[in-house]
Amino acid sequence: MSKDTNEKTQQQQQTEKDWYEDLVLRSGLAEHSGVKGCMTIKPYGYAIWENMKAVLDARFKATGHVNAAFPLFIPKSYLSKEASHIEGFAKECAVVTHYRLINDPNGNGVIVDPSAKLTEELIVRPTSETIIWSTYKRWIQSYRDLPLLINQWANVVRWEMRTRLFLRTAEFHWQEGHTAHATANEAITEAQLMLTEYANFMENYMAVPVITGCKTESERFAGAVDTYTCEALMQDGKALQMGTSHFLGQNFAKAFDVKFLSKDGVEEYAWATSWGVSTRLMGALIMVHADEAGLVVPPKLAPTQVVLIPLINKHTKERQADFDSAIEKIKQELNGLNFVYDDDDTKRSGFKFAEYELRGVPVRIAVGLRDIDNGVVEVARRDTREKFSLPMDNLGAAIRELLNDIQNNMFQKAKQYRDSHITTVDTFDEFKEALNTKGGFIYAHWDGTPETEAAIKELTKASTRCIPLNNPQEEGKCVLTGKPSKQRILFAKAY
Amino acid sequence: MSKDTNEKTQQQQQTEKDWYEDLVLRSGLAEHSGVKGCMTIKPYGYAIWENMKAVLDARFKATGHVNAAFPLFIPKSYLSKEASHIEGFAKECAVVTHYRLINDPNGNGVIVDPSAKLTEELIVRPTSETIIWSTYKRWIQSYRDLPLLINQWANVVRWEMRTRLFLRTAEFHWQEGHTAHATANEAITEAQLMLTEYANFMENYMAVPVITGCKTESERFAGAVDTYTCEALMQDGKALQMGTSHFLGQNFAKAFDVKFLSKDGVEEYAWATSWGVSTRLMGALIMVHADEAGLVVPPKLAPTQVVLIPLINKHTKERQADFDSAIEKIKQELNGLNFVYDDDDTKRSGFKFAEYELRGVPVRIAVGLRDIDNGVVEVARRDTREKFSLPMDNLGAAIRELLNDIQNNMFQKAKQYRDSHITTVDTFDEFKEALNTKGGFIYAHWDGTPETEAAIKELTKASTRCIPLNNPQEEGKCVLTGKPSKQRILFAKAY
Repeated sequence: MSKDTNEKTQQQQQTEKDWYEDLVLRSGLAEHSGVKGCMTIKPYGYAIWENMKAVLDARFKATGHVNAAFPLFIPKSYLSKEASHIEGFAKECAVVTHYRLINDPNGNGVIVDPSAKLTEELIVRPTSETIIWSTYKRWIQSYRDLPLLINQWANVVRWEMRTRLFLRTAEFHWQEGHTAHATANEAITEAQLMLTEYANFMENYMAVPVITGCKTESERFAGAVDTYTCEALMQDGKALQMGTSHFLGQNFAKAFDVKFLSKDGVEEYAWATSWGVSTRLMGALIMVHADEAGLVVPPKLAPTQVVLIPLINKHTKERQADFDSAIEKIKQELNGLNFVYDDDDTKRSGFKFAEYELRGVPVRIAVGLRDIDNGVVEVARRDTREKFSLPMDNLGAAIRELLNDIQNNMFQKAKQYRDSHITTVDTFDEFKEALNTKGGFIYAHWDGTPETEAAIKELTKASTRCIPLNNPQEEGKCVLTGKPSKQRILFAKAY
Repeated sequence: MSKDTNEKTQQQQQTEKDWYEDLVLRSGLAEHSGVKGCMTIKPYGYAIWENMKAVLDARFKATGHVNAAFPLFIPKSYLSKEASHIEGFAKECAVVTHYRLINDPNGNGVIVDPSAKLTEELIVRPTSETIIWSTYKRWIQSYRDLPLLINQWANVVRWEMRTRLFLRTAEFHWQEGHTAHATANEAITEAQLMLTEYANFMENYMAVPVITGCKTESERFAGAVDTYTCEALMQDGKALQMGTSHFLGQNFAKAFDVKFLSKDGVEEYAWATSWGVSTRLMGALIMVHADEAGLVVPPKLAPTQVVLIPLINKHTKERQADFDSAIEKIKQELNGLNFVYDDDDTKRSGFKFAEYELRGVPVRIAVGLRDIDNGVVEVARRDTREKFSLPMDNLGAAIRELLNDIQNNMFQKAKQYRDSHITTVDTFDEFKEALNTKGGFIYAHWDGTPETEAAIKELTKASTRCIPLNNPQEEGKCVLTGKPSKQRILFAKAY
């Protein structure tokens, strides 16, 4: 790849980042805060995230999990207990060293009290395996205590210098499931079950098609035996890891000495999983569906599914009673949906149309005197931006059908894009060609070594995304080294 | 008060603390973690807290508020901006000074990277007025941006050495509402509205009667013009501040320069409120209702409202089909309630009865062969511990009525206790006498000075709890100084 190409790519990336961040800001989802690396999730963004949480939480509970809350802080020594965990984990953490402020003797506000130094530093949790497994030691004695199926909704901190709203921030919000089991098989089944739950949520609610698979060894979570992942494709041709589920073997049980007495009276180490999705999902939602007019929010997650805008003109007042009763009838029809009636008369209709488009509200209904006389309303669907009339009678049923159709259409459109951006290649030239002209996933043979993986990444910026579940086995040759390979795997440039 | 009396009181307090902490631990609500001052909220405790959150969150939304998420960290300099805020606020905070760990060159796990020192220390939020008002500066320009009605559910940290589960912990979970208004009156109305919402929740859901009122100047939140409070009485005669709502005037708007252009085109500072309740509510729920057998959880907040326990004996198997169909019928009747069918045959019924009593499950239903033949079930209500039979026919309706009755009875019982522990006194001897023999609230004249307030606290350990809303005005003399007073106010020993 020539230097020019490289530079162009960087410039393009900059533009894409600007487009993305600009959209997040303009649509009122989130913004950067006064604290470097930390974002403020604004009410509209938080409302979408709350809808996501509600669906996921219900599914976690339906599959037997309960919520709990573990400490925000982790004693520094805990992090060292599972060697591969701390070795592989990024060490960019927020470290608490003191516990008191005092008035500055020079009168400049407050300073840190140098005498209030902690004997052991505390780390703001970057993930909670260590603090949770130190707790499980007290909770698990017998096979009767298993399985232990716990989730927590929490904020975590991983220090980041180059942040991007929702996709990469120092503080982010997520859920982390941490389960303990009596057998390896049970734990593997749990990790796969939660992967399936994630994939179902992403496809059926977010309308984002995902490929589920296993990470290669070098892309695994630090401390995991196997990492399962849901991978999605953004509209710019880059992949995004949407959520992961880990089979942790007995690594954390051994590190924190969590043993149980089995049915046969034998002392054994417990088997573990952990799994999580974060506010990063918001980034995917935006990048998969947004268009030139702004966000497109899938109906099942939209805080506002329908906006109703009255078209007022100088004649409206003359027939106010007719107008009001028509509006009332429409409101009745929309009862039960998340809908907003926006009759703010300080803003023009055109301005409102653009605002709700920017915020991705799935359906807009506009109604004026002439519509009322014709017994219809004007409907605009956000996904295709088509406009058409619908009869006022039975409007509620028609809108519900329309919302379903939008949900399905958004998924199909994203799936079509994704499917048409998986390229099977046999040579490294084809690999680079597909990556640079088309982007998306590259499905290629690889010799299975971390060295080749690293070399491909170095040469192309594409990383291994996953070995798909039920991946067909076929003899082939590694695109880079020509060494024998038993299966193709997915590569992509990724966030 | 003699030295002996003092010592006895301390010993009693120790016993009460042990009783309380012991109950929290045994009933599986929470426990101390490996991090000093931080608790782990266990699944059963968290399930009750989730129910509280759901009710409160729905009320916040019904009153026009939206949720958002602000950063966990606050730059140190922000805390100094509102002088009375930092002056009055406890300075025991968790301070982040570094952002990276590195491998210990001596091979002992990880150490803090001395080169990764922050240029400005970050404080883990003890409360979020400063970070939020620094944000509101960007969000508020015009009267059209007001009112701004935002809440966040968050974890906060106030370093505490002497902790008590739920009541006082370094990290705790809460919600904090932060609103901005165009006029002082609007902000005061908001602060009072949220106080009323809190009181309604505490009385109608927690079954905890509260007295609403204003804090005296010295008990106000740091930075507030007025602090409204809900005060409840625990069974040990001590008061607990359950939640507060603050009218903050223009203090934070001035500190963070938050101005808006009014309708009349004049630039003005915004008016603020903040209000919060925390996991401390869990402590109140326990201390107001628990009895010698354990927790008593009000039906409206109980994760398990009804437990159904089959009474199996050696004859059950002979008539398994009859038994199963009766159980099925009961389950149908209980459909829609939070109920658990516990047929774990590794535990004896007596053991289960004690377990569910300990956890405060409002209604227990036990059913054996003889009951089935008689068309009845055996019911035990947790609040009064009465047992009686109920016909299997229409059992669902009867249990629903019973749950309502339990909810009401718990409130009435707590109210009776509270009301009988408000003592009106006219002299300081009566004050001390009532406090030491009976405990509870003391309603007494006070000269209105912080000095007298401090002296009374020093002499009796009782602090001013509040000036009740709509407090009757009457001429009188301060119990301590004899100086003129216009009203009685409430004192109590408090958590």
